[in-house]
Amino acid sequence: MNNAAIGVDIGGTNTKYGIVSTEGVVLFENSISTSDFNQVEELANYIFNSIQESKLKLNKDITINAIGIGAPNANHLSGYIEYAPNLKWKKLVPIVNIFKEVFSTPTFLTNDANVVAIGEMSFGIAKNIKDFIVITLGTGLGSAIVSDGQLIYGHDGFAGELGHTTIFDHNARECSCGKYGCLEAYVSSQGMRRSSFEIMCNSNTHSELRDISFNNITPKIIHQAAKRGDPIAIQTFEMTGDILGKFLANSISYTSPKAIILFGGLTYAKELIMKPTIKSMEQSLLAIYKNKVNLILSTSGANMAIIGAATMSLKAIK
Amino acid sequence: MNNAAIGVDIGGTNTKYGIVSTEGVVLFENSISTSDFNQVEELANYIFNSIQESKLKLNKDITINAIGIGAPNANHLSGYIEYAPNLKWKKLVPIVNIFKEVFSTPTFLTNDANVVAIGEMSFGIAKNIKDFIVITLGTGLGSAIVSDGQLIYGHDGFAGELGHTTIFDHNARECSCGKYGCLEAYVSSQGMRRSSFEIMCNSNTHSELRDISFNNITPKIIHQAAKRGDPIAIQTFEMTGDILGKFLANSISYTSPKAIILFGGLTYAKELIMKPTIKSMEQSLLAIYKNKVNLILSTSGANMAIIGAATMSLKAIK
Repeated sequence: MNNAAIGVDIGGTNTKYGIVSTEGVVLFENSISTSDFNQVEELANYIFNSIQESKLKLNKDITINAIGIGAPNANHLSGYIEYAPNLKWKKLVPIVNIFKEVFSTPTFLTNDANVVAIGEMSFGIAKNIKDFIVITLGTGLGSAIVSDGQLIYGHDGFAGELGHTTIFDHNARECSCGKYGCLEAYVSSQGMRRSSFEIMCNSNTHSELRDISFNNITPKIIHQAAKRGDPIAIQTFEMTGDILGKFLANSISYTSPKAIILFGGLTYAKELIMKPTIKSMEQSLLAIYKNKVNLILSTSGANMAIIGAATMSLKAIK
Repeated sequence: MNNAAIGVDIGGTNTKYGIVSTEGVVLFENSISTSDFNQVEELANYIFNSIQESKLKLNKDITINAIGIGAPNANHLSGYIEYAPNLKWKKLVPIVNIFKEVFSTPTFLTNDANVVAIGEMSFGIAKNIKDFIVITLGTGLGSAIVSDGQLIYGHDGFAGELGHTTIFDHNARECSCGKYGCLEAYVSSQGMRRSSFEIMCNSNTHSELRDISFNNITPKIIHQAAKRGDPIAIQTFEMTGDILGKFLANSISYTSPKAIILFGGLTYAKELIMKPTIKSMEQSLLAIYKNKVNLILSTSGANMAIIGAATMSLKAIK
């Protein structure tokens, strides 16, 4: 018999899920479009059926002991997703109860970056680091803070929503949460799209991005253009890195981490995002913090969130 | 025999010190000007003599078991004050060794806001709160973060230098640390002085503050003027509270505290600072955090820092 858990990673664009062994090995995984599901019940049923099928195909005696879910604005204490700006299920979603009902299995929830942090601590790059921050760069910007080996949850389970800390700019961008000037409106897929348009509107520089509509532009397209030397695309990465670096310098003042781990969609751009981020971060740091913090691009695959979610649930039922 | 410890609270303007019993009772206290001492050795010797005298006067059999020091940019791991912008002793000051040599007593160091947090947790307003932040508003802005009952120190002991997190403004003020746009350059005694001048230079409004030089203006003078209805003085508090509130909203996203405790010189202005701060904080918060966090003015006297410093040292020798 193989003991395992289901890990679910709900993102603004895609939901990834899979079966993970107690040793952190992904036995099966799949990715679906989050917005295809109007109700969380439909998502839970879809995943249930998919897992049943995959278990048959795997042809192993697998026992699913628990389900772990990572999601934006997730509260591990209440089991609810609360007012997540990047999800179409608005307001209060009792996701733990919904999954429990469909699967008849103990289900646990935490925010999407926390599951990555748990994965990196258990099987990844943060195995020997006790103080670190995870920043997930996807549709939005998620974060997890680990201090002295412990995830910080706060009094209500909502610690670490750093995507909605604000930069103090009077002409700041409107965020999907309704506030103005949130970090996420600058440093995320959406943010990069907006930055490329801001740079285009302020300059006359030729760019292949000028032929693409706002809704069609993606960080991948900007990345490809930057690799071809497109100046607007390169500037977009520089602007994103500059703001991310200033923000990380502030974050370091809070918990003085040994490392900051960047994870998710934007990180495939590697040096294009890392170079301006490190430069801006080091420039913005107080002397006592300079040249001390490792900024690391996670080399784990996207399934580290699934691994972390499953691992969290296995730890919770111990 | 009365077991006790010495608590020392080193600030940019004044240094307070005293003898504190194991029950947190201050048996003797005194305040001196920090800048009167060119060397930390002189300060340590002055305090040593003063404590000896006071012990004679107290006419009690007091045993000093330990010394606790709170100071800006203090590192409890290394025992050094490192590059403190508001102190005239620059660079690296091995303050723990200096006090140990003068007193021949175990000596412990942490940052100035951490000692307040320890005091408030042990004998003050935070006795039953496990997640809170302390902001000390004096010459500079200090901070301490408590998560799940534990002070956050970070990998190098330097967590919680929030006075030097920066606001992202291109015309930002130069800070005493050499960076631009630090919170401390806006929200502190120095910051309020600068804000009052910024408001005066941008308006024609009559104000009694226009007869006072930059170096002579203090938050106390601005406070007195505001109580008399001076519009520039009132605006200065509004501007300070507005920036402080936005910053606190960001801080809440990090550790989701149950309470934020404001402590120190600026807090005597009570409603003048609290009202604009709460308004700005609540406006800036993400929905999940709104109307949940208690912003509290510490009612402890200024000697809470001495009590906390002494208590820290007594805990350390246990």
